[in-house]
Amino acid sequence: MWALFYFILVYNLNFGCRMVKQYVLGIDIGGTFTKIGIVDLEGTILKNTVYKTGANAFYGDFLNKLEVQVNLLRKALNKNDRLLCIGVGAPNANYLTGLMEHPVNFRWGDKVPLVSEIEKLFGLPVYIANDANAAALGELYFGSGKNMKDFVVLTLGTGLGSGIIANGEILRGAHGMAGEIGHVNVDPNGRNCKCGLQGCLETYASVTGIKRTVFELLAEMTVDSAMRRISYDEMTGEMIANAALEGDEVALTAFEKTALVLGGKMADTAAHLDPEAFILSGGLSKAGAILLNPVITSMEKNLFKAYRGKIKVMISDLPGASAVLGPAALAWQQINRMKT
Amino acid sequence: MWALFYFILVYNLNFGCRMVKQYVLGIDIGGTFTKIGIVDLEGTILKNTVYKTGANAFYGDFLNKLEVQVNLLRKALNKNDRLLCIGVGAPNANYLTGLMEHPVNFRWGDKVPLVSEIEKLFGLPVYIANDANAAALGELYFGSGKNMKDFVVLTLGTGLGSGIIANGEILRGAHGMAGEIGHVNVDPNGRNCKCGLQGCLETYASVTGIKRTVFELLAEMTVDSAMRRISYDEMTGEMIANAALEGDEVALTAFEKTALVLGGKMADTAAHLDPEAFILSGGLSKAGAILLNPVITSMEKNLFKAYRGKIKVMISDLPGASAVLGPAALAWQQINRMKT
Repeated sequence: MWALFYFILVYNLNFGCRMVKQYVLGIDIGGTFTKIGIVDLEGTILKNTVYKTGANAFYGDFLNKLEVQVNLLRKALNKNDRLLCIGVGAPNANYLTGLMEHPVNFRWGDKVPLVSEIEKLFGLPVYIANDANAAALGELYFGSGKNMKDFVVLTLGTGLGSGIIANGEILRGAHGMAGEIGHVNVDPNGRNCKCGLQGCLETYASVTGIKRTVFELLAEMTVDSAMRRISYDEMTGEMIANAALEGDEVALTAFEKTALVLGGKMADTAAHLDPEAFILSGGLSKAGAILLNPVITSMEKNLFKAYRGKIKVMISDLPGASAVLGPAALAWQQINRMKT
Repeated sequence: MWALFYFILVYNLNFGCRMVKQYVLGIDIGGTFTKIGIVDLEGTILKNTVYKTGANAFYGDFLNKLEVQVNLLRKALNKNDRLLCIGVGAPNANYLTGLMEHPVNFRWGDKVPLVSEIEKLFGLPVYIANDANAAALGELYFGSGKNMKDFVVLTLGTGLGSGIIANGEILRGAHGMAGEIGHVNVDPNGRNCKCGLQGCLETYASVTGIKRTVFELLAEMTVDSAMRRISYDEMTGEMIANAALEGDEVALTAFEKTALVLGGKMADTAAHLDPEAFILSGGLSKAGAILLNPVITSMEKNLFKAYRGKIKVMISDLPGASAVLGPAALAWQQINRMKT
């Protein structure tokens, strides 16, 4: 009799465990697109979607659209699956305050209450991080950073974002704002940056930066180039990369110049952090070896001797939908913290 | 009967505790002087001494002299005092290997076995750190960094050393070599650095750096200056500071130029680490406000807006004998680790 009871109990527990699968929701809010996805502890994306953020419309509209999109996504969950919490990556998101603070490319105000509003929408705990910090966590949990404790992620997109992992943890800083490597100075008399400073790294080493370099070169050089038939507003990083792959001299020179600047500043970052590796991600990183090889050459040339030959530079191997993996990693990290 | 036994036991334990005072030995090995001191948990220096290192003589001679000097110092200990362990700060000391690696200003070889040899001499556990990292620990335990978790120490001496405290811990990096801020690049076509690179920060912002600037200015400017009556080899940081305090135009301009470069690069460091403060120490920091004020102006001007007005810059308030407090803090940290 007791044996039968025990059998039923254990059977049900096991059966229950197998049925209940746990997930988190990752939300990556970009200036152009918002990417959301349901992700398990292994980094497998159950379902994800991408839609326009509406950074120039009202914040309330963004929240309404988010609610609709998340509810659509939730249909992929089985009856017994559990969504535990939500991780959000966004530009200028500060985990200390729960706000997006002075986001340059958004018209949602100076202090956007991300955590409180998204918690209200879904009744789940919400954790936020600056998008590049979230990307670094994504690499640490699910990507090339899995077996490393000290590395730097550089996201080369519209701007240059950075996330620093030091001793296995995201480096937060005293005010929650560490990792703004896009705004170290390349040249005090250099290009104007949207942030108000002059000569910031991201005005050279980003998709926008290489575009600016292409246009500088079109003025300086006399060779013909596919780049001469594309307007500034139409030109994308992919176009420059494709032209470079086809041997376009202007595009190739632009990559060399970009790599020279980026590699030099990576040597400065190494002199601060002594990382095991740099992981490059974002639009510009898709150019692959055309970017990677001259970056490594320039970095090695500028490295303090104690670091030479020791620091890896790699391109992120996370899949295309990986933008949601960073915020998802942030969410899983919080859950693991609560367990310990 | 039992009560009497208990009384005797407790009395003896208490009596014993009161008598036994615990100390560590701090050793700061510099290119010119070695400073050693016996230090308690509160950072009080029981006794200390300074003597010539002999960096150009044999390493064996250094060890012999160290043994003599430490044994002299030990006489200050009472019979029941205990020396628990030894902390050593030295240029290019790597805590991972226990070696001084490629120390530029020492003729003791490329890999100097500090830990093993000093342990052999005194039969006590020995812990080492790069001198600037030790200085940062000194500030964290006994100095201006006591109530901070994220700050950067810049030691402005012959070179520019740096120690980074992040989240209450020394930032070590993947190869134990984090914090070589003296070798970030100011100008790719700039001054030659002893390390083989060109335009390193320490060629501008250090005692040697400001001397080089003074000599550049003596060539550029036409005004008379006290600096014109001192040879390069004779000139010290103190002489430049004193001349500046007396209104010497060349010396004042040298401080302004130094501060401009240093403050600019501190803004770059902030863009990595988001520290609560910079603590300046070493010979050049003794100039006080003449250095501090223009450094703050230059840093603020170059800071990414998220950090503006948030980062303190201060001059170390540790006493003159403080060089031994860093290595002592390192030793106490290890003891506290073993307890937990």
